[in-house]
Amino acid sequence: MAELAQLIDSEVFLAYATYTTIVVLKMMLMSVVTAFYRMTRKAFANPEDASTHGKGENAKKYLRTDPDVERARRVHLNDLENIVPFVIIGLLYALSGPDLFTALLHFRIFVGSRVFHTISYLVPLPQPSRGMSWLVGYAVTISMAYRLLSMSLHL
Amino acid sequence: MAELAQLIDSEVFLAYATYTTIVVLKMMLMSVVTAFYRMTRKAFANPEDASTHGKGENAKKYLRTDPDVERARRVHLNDLENIVPFVIIGLLYALSGPDLFTALLHFRIFVGSRVFHTISYLVPLPQPSRGMSWLVGYAVTISMAYRLLSMSLHL
Amino acid sequence: MAELAQLIDSEVFLAYATYTTIVVLKMMLMSVVTAFYRMTRKAFANPEDASTHGKGENAKKYLRTDPDVERARRVHLNDLENIVPFVIIGLLYALSGPDLFTALLHFRIFVGSRVFHTISYLVPLPQPSRGMSWLVGYAVTISMAYRLLSMSLHL
Repeated sequence: MAELAQLIDSEVFLAYATYTTIVVLKMMLMSVVTAFYRMTRKAFANPEDASTHGKGENAKKYLRTDPDVERARRVHLNDLENIVPFVIIGLLYALSGPDLFTALLHFRIFVGSRVFHTISYLVPLPQPSRGMSWLVGYAVTISMAYRLLSMSLHL
Repeated sequence: MAELAQLIDSEVFLAYATYTTIVVLKMMLMSVVTAFYRMTRKAFANPEDASTHGKGENAKKYLRTDPDVERARRVHLNDLENIVPFVIIGLLYALSGPDLFTALLHFRIFVGSRVFHTISYLVPLPQPSRGMSWLVGYAVTISMAYRLLSMSLHL
Repeated sequence: MAELAQLIDSEVFLAYATYTTIVVLKMMLMSVVTAFYRMTRKAFANPEDASTHGKGENAKKYLRTDPDVERARRVHLNDLENIVPFVIIGLLYALSGPDLFTALLHFRIFVGSRVFHTISYLVPLPQPSRGMSWLVGYAVTISMAYRLLSMSLHL
């Protein structure tokens, strides 16, 4: 990353870039998981998808919801609701000059919590596994936002 | 924000960072609102969540939708659909060198419109309160996008 | 973009800003499409919206789902799931110093694939039109993420 290193010569920013890429790829993986469940459970949302698995009345019966598909979709939406705020707040945080150790701690705990969240949602593990992993990720983003707002308010 | 001030020595960028952090925190608050309604209304989407509030058949009856929960979820999704574009377009806009007064006007109107949108959605206030607040926020993002595209097109 | 050009003097970044603005505007357009279908099909999610089209029992019957509205909402959610990762990974990619030709190829193919995705979803075109256009956009984001992770890992 020659140019990036010149532009933003910061270990913290490179760490941010790495962890963000990993956690966004994890979020994108949910599209594949949902598609897998849709095809193996034969449960589609669009007539044009169902009709690739049957003709006429046979196709119509595949236009349905399935618990596993809905579960995968909820994981994906929860990722959007939590990973996108992390990426946004994390970018501003990474540019605000935190020390590398603290920043890495934030990024690692967040990515770990979201991987565990996905596992505990898909298995599913009994509560409060999923609730706690959600809370840990949420707290990391709040912690970064708190630093940003306490350092400087330009209202 | 010592380092950030050196990297991007711009009042506009600091204002962007402040308003973005506030509006993303507002979006994240919707997770708490939804969880609050799910627990007080006892309306869950997952069997493992419902079973923390009852056993066997008793748990099954909590696997249901509730109008307040669905309303909170719609606010959250609407936030994702509108706040995320603001954050993305706003970042590019803040880097494009607008004057501070104009930029602050955009950021303040947007954040105000989204706070009012959430209130008018959750109360709910009669239409067109929510519709108008949505439109104002939408127009702010379009205005910033227009400036970006009219200043430079690198296709 | 005087200041931006000084801050980040990069053709690649300006191209990123242009294509991102276009594809985010395309995503925002889905709000208008959904609102259009809701009003022409008279299918609303909120009682306060339905009551602008009728009184009492008449309003209640407009509280319903409609296939065209649901289709537009699925396009919008699919955009969020795919365009937001492109914008995030694309920003880091644009800052990582790729050559202009390769970067433009990524940005153009992605934006083209998403425009075609929306058309093939809304018409709808028979599968695998939509599936293929989704896959092309997905592959572009994976390709940029692969470059980022292979160039530097700061774990």
